[in-house]
Amino acid sequence: ATYTLNNGLAPGDIAHLLESSPPKQRLILWELLDDDLEGEVLSYLSDDIRSEFLRDMDAEAVLSIAEDFETDDFADLLQQLPEALIAEVLESMDTQDRVRIEEVLAFPEDSAGGLMTTDMITVRPDISVEVVLRYLRKHKAIPASTDNLLVVNRRDQFVGVLPISTLLVSNLNATVREIMQTDVDQIPPTMSENDVANLFERQDLISAPVVADSGRLLGRITIDDVVDVIRERANHEILSRAGLDEDEDMLAPFFKTAKSRAVWLGINLITAFLASAVIGMFEGTIDKVVALAVLMPIVASMGGIAGSQALTLVIRGMATGKVSRGNISWLTNREFLVGLFNGCIWALVVATAAIVWFEDLQLGAVIGAALIINMAVAGLAGTILPMVLQSMKIDPALAGGVILTTITDVVGFLSFLGLATIVYGF
Amino acid sequence: ATYTLNNGLAPGDIAHLLESSPPKQRLILWELLDDDLEGEVLSYLSDDIRSEFLRDMDAEAVLSIAEDFETDDFADLLQQLPEALIAEVLESMDTQDRVRIEEVLAFPEDSAGGLMTTDMITVRPDISVEVVLRYLRKHKAIPASTDNLLVVNRRDQFVGVLPISTLLVSNLNATVREIMQTDVDQIPPTMSENDVANLFERQDLISAPVVADSGRLLGRITIDDVVDVIRERANHEILSRAGLDEDEDMLAPFFKTAKSRAVWLGINLITAFLASAVIGMFEGTIDKVVALAVLMPIVASMGGIAGSQALTLVIRGMATGKVSRGNISWLTNREFLVGLFNGCIWALVVATAAIVWFEDLQLGAVIGAALIINMAVAGLAGTILPMVLQSMKIDPALAGGVILTTITDVVGFLSFLGLATIVYGF
Ligand SMILES: [Mg+2]
Ligand SMILES: [Mg+2]
Ligand SMILES: [Mg+2]
Ligand SMILES: [Mg+2]
Ligand SMILES: [Mg+2]
Ligand SMILES: [Mg+2]
Ligand SMILES: [Mg+2]
Ligand SMILES: [Mg+2]
Ligand SMILES: [Mg+2]
Ligand SMILES: [Mg+2]
Ligand SMILES: [Mg+2]
Ligand SMILES: [Mg+2]
Ligand SMILES: [Mg+2]
Repeated sequence: ATYTLNNGLAPGDIAHLLESSPPKQRLILWELLDDDLEGEVLSYLSDDIRSEFLRDMDAEAVLSIAEDFETDDFADLLQQLPEALIAEVLESMDTQDRVRIEEVLAFPEDSAGGLMTTDMITVRPDISVEVVLRYLRKHKAIPASTDNLLVVNRRDQFVGVLPISTLLVSNLNATVREIMQTDVDQIPPTMSENDVANLFERQDLISAPVVADSGRLLGRITIDDVVDVIRERANHEILSRAGLDEDEDMLAPFFKTAKSRAVWLGINLITAFLASAVIGMFEGTIDKVVALAVLMPIVASMGGIAGSQALTLVIRGMATGKVSRGNISWLTNREFLVGLFNGCIWALVVATAAIVWFEDLQLGAVIGAALIINMAVAGLAGTILPMVLQSMKIDPALAGGVILTTITDVVGFLSFLGLATIVYGF
Repeated sequence: ATYTLNNGLAPGDIAHLLESSPPKQRLILWELLDDDLEGEVLSYLSDDIRSEFLRDMDAEAVLSIAEDFETDDFADLLQQLPEALIAEVLESMDTQDRVRIEEVLAFPEDSAGGLMTTDMITVRPDISVEVVLRYLRKHKAIPASTDNLLVVNRRDQFVGVLPISTLLVSNLNATVREIMQTDVDQIPPTMSENDVANLFERQDLISAPVVADSGRLLGRITIDDVVDVIRERANHEILSRAGLDEDEDMLAPFFKTAKSRAVWLGINLITAFLASAVIGMFEGTIDKVVALAVLMPIVASMGGIAGSQALTLVIRGMATGKVSRGNISWLTNREFLVGLFNGCIWALVVATAAIVWFEDLQLGAVIGAALIINMAVAGLAGTILPMVLQSMKIDPALAGGVILTTITDVVGFLSFLGLATIVYGF
């Protein structure tokens, strides 16, 4: 008897078990998995891990699991395969299925069009509730996450939605036209997946129609895929702050991990050398007042913290749509003042501590002034930087932190050691 | 004529507009808002901003908006009010509504019980599809996010779910018992909201029943509220890394912001002084080899980056359930080796640079060794720290970063300056 791994676990849970297992155990579990479940489990796996298992599949194997997938998920899977294999798989599909898949593949993966599924039920506006119910009863199954039927005219143009919940409480003789909703947000296929997620969040949607400029209904987006977008966005924002790739397997083997980490460390090293170069300019000053070397990390670190507070707030606000052109100048102003104000408060504390510790009044004045300068600059830079990066099409979540701490390090060391050189008169 | 703010905007969008407006504009918009929409808009606002508008409401005003809320949302709102007012509001409600609200209030806000709504439709297992459809048609409306009817026995115990999608395609004479699903995850009211979110994500759920130990059906959790949990969790993880409070209004006025930021800066200052104290121990050494002051930030910063990569990965993995007792030792081992390996790689680069820059072989050896030590420690500490903090009931997302960089600063300065003191023989 062969052991199989399917007793009572949902495919999503099996996928999660695979994702939480180190490389060797993962392979063993995959071998134990009932072959009939492979397709469904694959549809729940994240890209990086799925590609491990896809690597040795040929067109036939891919086709054999196609039926376990919804259109959108199968399109995602195809996009991971080599061009030649995609073509081979598409050729072997029947025309109707191929057309549906190609419709999704025509749009970028991170757009509404790439996110949509073409699995949906459409009805005409002029039929009655009773006919709709009879029509539904002819189906073997209703696509997952169907809260609305989609109402289209003869030219397949979107007319409105008929919520199932309305259908169930309506008079059997009412027509679809009488009970449908027409004031629904129609999603253009070019909308970014992030905007789609914000729309779903704000309006508590379960599904929403994707409609072309021409008015033609292309498909619909469902909440389960939006939840994935929200989670991926959170992963991206959290992980790229540390230079990590959100698509990468958390339990990737040693060498793969070491290699991907090395790049980020290298970038950071360059910025660290930049800070060292600034300090190096003042070697003479430090040689005469060693206390400067002892205290200088305080100035840099306080600026880094103050700046990253502003930066984190603005990046999160941009992702959730709360920070925009309309309020960024108000926000920049507030963050600058907050940096300045807290700079003054903590300058007093640090200056006092420095004076007591090293019995040197000038040192207190210098570190106080440097702290104020660095924290005000930090508030300003932390707010403006993400907007500037975004307008340059650079991902603020990835690059913002490194650039910001480089700024606060350089400004911190420069103002502290520069002021010291002037005050001590070297 | 009075201008009102409701032309075509959904309540969730109006709430978003209010949340994206600086304090003064926000008040003006609120005044412009159609009074009939206030309740619904309040139900979409985040806690911090909602409490601004709730502040001057009395029991009567709160009751007047109650009908715009689902049970779970109204319970959330009540929890923001002073005790005396809660009691007054509950007393004035009719018995049925009060009992439903009290059932939700009995559980902590961040548990499944606090997240659930009692708005649901229940049916008995022995009736036919036709009777169910007739019963539904008697309803004025079906609660939002109803994908399943809940099947209960005579003692109100949960028996199974009847998906609407099954109901619509089933034979009219079939009984509920024949077509219901019984292999569904029942959520205990004590489950944490984070576990609920992971369950919904993995199984692509739209709603799920909350069932007491006794088997009694208490309510159900819907995807829109789970999406809020997922977003709040992401906000928490992203914002608390910078010492920011996820419940706080992003556009809070200057003074409120300055005050809340000051605390975090103060905590960071203490850790910065700790690092300075370590450097202070080696004042004599720095006085003789000033190059040490120039290079020491590199050692601390590379350790900080390496450590925060491990830390970020583990915290995210813990939140999504991918990192657990089962794989933490494998992960710790990998992260330690990755830290050690990348430490060696970059030690070579930095040592060479130091030797070229300062023409000092010993300096190269010292900084190389210090880098290797600090980065290996960083990998180890970054992995273990979040698990230790969690077992001590300290939030790793909030405290992890500060503690970790304190460790990497102290270990970095101590190993670099300590080794230098030994090597140069002071
Ligand atoms: Mg197998
Ligand atoms: Mg994506
Ligand atoms: Mg897709
Ligand atoms: Mg919502
Ligand atoms: Mg889908
Ligand atoms: Mg999906
Ligand atoms: Mg008003
Ligand atoms: Mg809440
Ligand atoms: Mg909460
Ligand atoms: Mg609640
Ligand atoms: Mg999912
Ligand atoms: Mg709700
Ligand atoms: Mg809600």
